[in-house]
Amino acid sequence: MDEHAYNTQVGAQTATDYLIASKRCETQDLEHFLALGELVATISNLVHNLQRERGASNLYLASGGAQFVRERQQLCCATDAAVNAFYSCLQRVESSIHRVHGGMRLFNRIAYLLHNLKDLKSLREQIVYRSVALEQATQHYNNLVQSLLAFVFETADAAIDPTISASLVALFNFMQGKELAGQERAAGASGFARGYFDDGHIEHINHLIDGQQRCLEVFESFADLDCAQRWTDYQAHIPVTEIEQLRVQITQKRAGDSRAGVNGRPCIKADPELANRWFVLTTSRIDAMKEVEEGLSERLRQLCEARLKEAHDRLTHHETLIKMLEQSNELPPLSPMQSASVYHSHVLADKPAGRTLMELLQFQAQRLQQMSEELNAAKTALDERKLIERAKLLLMKHRSLSEEQAHRLLRQMAMNQSRRLAEIARSVLEMADVWG
Amino acid sequence: MDEHAYNTQVGAQTATDYLIASKRCETQDLEHFLALGELVATISNLVHNLQRERGASNLYLASGGAQFVRERQQLCCATDAAVNAFYSCLQRVESSIHRVHGGMRLFNRIAYLLHNLKDLKSLREQIVYRSVALEQATQHYNNLVQSLLAFVFETADAAIDPTISASLVALFNFMQGKELAGQERAAGASGFARGYFDDGHIEHINHLIDGQQRCLEVFESFADLDCAQRWTDYQAHIPVTEIEQLRVQITQKRAGDSRAGVNGRPCIKADPELANRWFVLTTSRIDAMKEVEEGLSERLRQLCEARLKEAHDRLTHHETLIKMLEQSNELPPLSPMQSASVYHSHVLADKPAGRTLMELLQFQAQRLQQMSEELNAAKTALDERKLIERAKLLLMKHRSLSEEQAHRLLRQMAMNQSRRLAEIARSVLEMADVWG
Repeated sequence: MDEHAYNTQVGAQTATDYLIASKRCETQDLEHFLALGELVATISNLVHNLQRERGASNLYLASGGAQFVRERQQLCCATDAAVNAFYSCLQRVESSIHRVHGGMRLFNRIAYLLHNLKDLKSLREQIVYRSVALEQATQHYNNLVQSLLAFVFETADAAIDPTISASLVALFNFMQGKELAGQERAAGASGFARGYFDDGHIEHINHLIDGQQRCLEVFESFADLDCAQRWTDYQAHIPVTEIEQLRVQITQKRAGDSRAGVNGRPCIKADPELANRWFVLTTSRIDAMKEVEEGLSERLRQLCEARLKEAHDRLTHHETLIKMLEQSNELPPLSPMQSASVYHSHVLADKPAGRTLMELLQFQAQRLQQMSEELNAAKTALDERKLIERAKLLLMKHRSLSEEQAHRLLRQMAMNQSRRLAEIARSVLEMADVWG
Repeated sequence: MDEHAYNTQVGAQTATDYLIASKRCETQDLEHFLALGELVATISNLVHNLQRERGASNLYLASGGAQFVRERQQLCCATDAAVNAFYSCLQRVESSIHRVHGGMRLFNRIAYLLHNLKDLKSLREQIVYRSVALEQATQHYNNLVQSLLAFVFETADAAIDPTISASLVALFNFMQGKELAGQERAAGASGFARGYFDDGHIEHINHLIDGQQRCLEVFESFADLDCAQRWTDYQAHIPVTEIEQLRVQITQKRAGDSRAGVNGRPCIKADPELANRWFVLTTSRIDAMKEVEEGLSERLRQLCEARLKEAHDRLTHHETLIKMLEQSNELPPLSPMQSASVYHSHVLADKPAGRTLMELLQFQAQRLQQMSEELNAAKTALDERKLIERAKLLLMKHRSLSEEQAHRLLRQMAMNQSRRLAEIARSVLEMADVWG
């Protein structure tokens, strides 16, 4: 067998070199995701700080600048520290972003969020001098948080390893759920404080509750068992029933005494005494979510490290096998101990006979195929989210609806036709050329 | 506006830096695909040479070593030159493979094909000494060609630019169609020479005709108009009708005199006088295909170059816009001439008002989204092919069928249920856990 029939003329690349190159690519990709995972952790922390700063700023503005002056200042300092941690991590991992699939998307998301972050300083000044309306300030914070979450979404889409992708899908959806929980807390607090909820308000809160539910469902189907269990355990300690009772007070359409008109618009009266209770209850839920989120973030890091170690081990193992092959042209069967460290190695271990290079190539091909099949589940969840967002945008544009109205329309169609939301979204988009 | 509210502390990265980084990623990806396109062109050429060498080797073996001695030698030399061209190109573009999405898959395909290529020398020796059966030698060449085509398939799957991906899907399917045409030529020639076609033979040829048709349909739906038109034009010059008449002679199930038994198996008698005519006709078709394929390959090169130039222009253009923004914080509207050079720039040109950095970010986001939506069409074609291949493999394994039998079973189910082949394949795979 002449291994260098041709390539001695132009170089010394052989099949084994490229098999190793294929495995190196995997290893490098995992290294980049370990770095990206770090960045995602700093984003998780930054988002949490922004959420708290937003809450304090709301209360400061709602009290006409009388309350939460010092708390707000402290929270702004904490956010600044989180911003700096994010920036320095970003510098460290920049080269990794260049290397992963979809780097152009990730960079564009970063440009977006930096652009939003840049305006934080002037927003804070406006808040201090109360030259910005509460709703407007809230919207600024919401946009900033959304642009940070969009980056996390994009990393999930960029992942090649199916377990890492699933872990990022779970993390993104949990973060998004927590953000909606934060918005619900703010919307509820202002309604109770004011003493009533009008229809727009109720619709908004229903929208936020619905959104949380969808996010948490996706989280549960993609989280590892430990993280999913942790969330179940925490919920046992959150006063879920009491939160539900208050939610019902806000959102149920009741006829009779509590339903009255304010400024000529129908609304539900609410007890201002409950404002504080609502805030405390929903905060306990959000704090629990933060802890689960930290667990998810830590889990992502461990996963990247474990995958990377496995990939390194496989690489070393294959290099050894190839050396043996070069000497004897056939390999001994794997011992069970050796095979235990090899991802999907049952394929190898199934074959007790000696193995050849062709088999090593086939194992790598099978592994890559299996990875890409497993990746599909996570991608589908991401694609469905994209579909729904695009369908909403289209409806908002063509029928001049608010985001919530567009969402409700999609949900109503899904219920009427007994189809999934994503399928309805797909139909809406497919019909856009016909109706648009 | 304080652009360095935070980042002066840890660096000077701004939103505009990352917008530029996003555009650079696009440019780099296109550079890598320009390199990969070169490699695909050398593969196209290598495959063509292997097909001719396989044909001559068949005739040499079929004639008991009496005919095509010199022709075979010349064709082997031509193949060697093509192999060397492939190797030296591979060395040049290796770093590009490292950088594209799915590099690990591409490297594994290369390892496969190098492994197959390595055995070519010993195969040739066996052919010279006629120590290998014709069918076995053919199978070796077929496998080698398939492993080369598999690399082209993978590049189509790795492409991010939708036009480049479509161009590679068209090229791959055309190459695959041409390979099946080559196999049909060989199978027909041996049957005519022998004087009969048995059922297995007929089934095989039907399978090859059916496969060509599917490949050429996909080619037509993904090729640019020029290349599709060129194929239509060539077909006008190929004696298609005569080829069809001979195909009908081979494949139609006729009752009566021409259907008789050879070695106890039913078969169709064929006129050995037609062997040469069949070879000439099918060769004229394959030669025409080679010319169309060269057009496709050249088209791919031009496309990569054009896309790369556009990306460079956009990058320069954006750098200019960003400089203007830094000076005035708002941009003038694009002139129609400027906008003409910018891909999807109608989005920009639609807005006559001054533009801000946020708008530039949104344009980039829209472009990336549009690219990924357009990419879906090509990906779907590739995914459907993968589905069908996987379903076939599964049926072959679980029901001990040949590839052709598995394919016929799928096709039969598709016809019975009036569903597309890919949908049936999906159902088969989904049901594997239930039935497997």
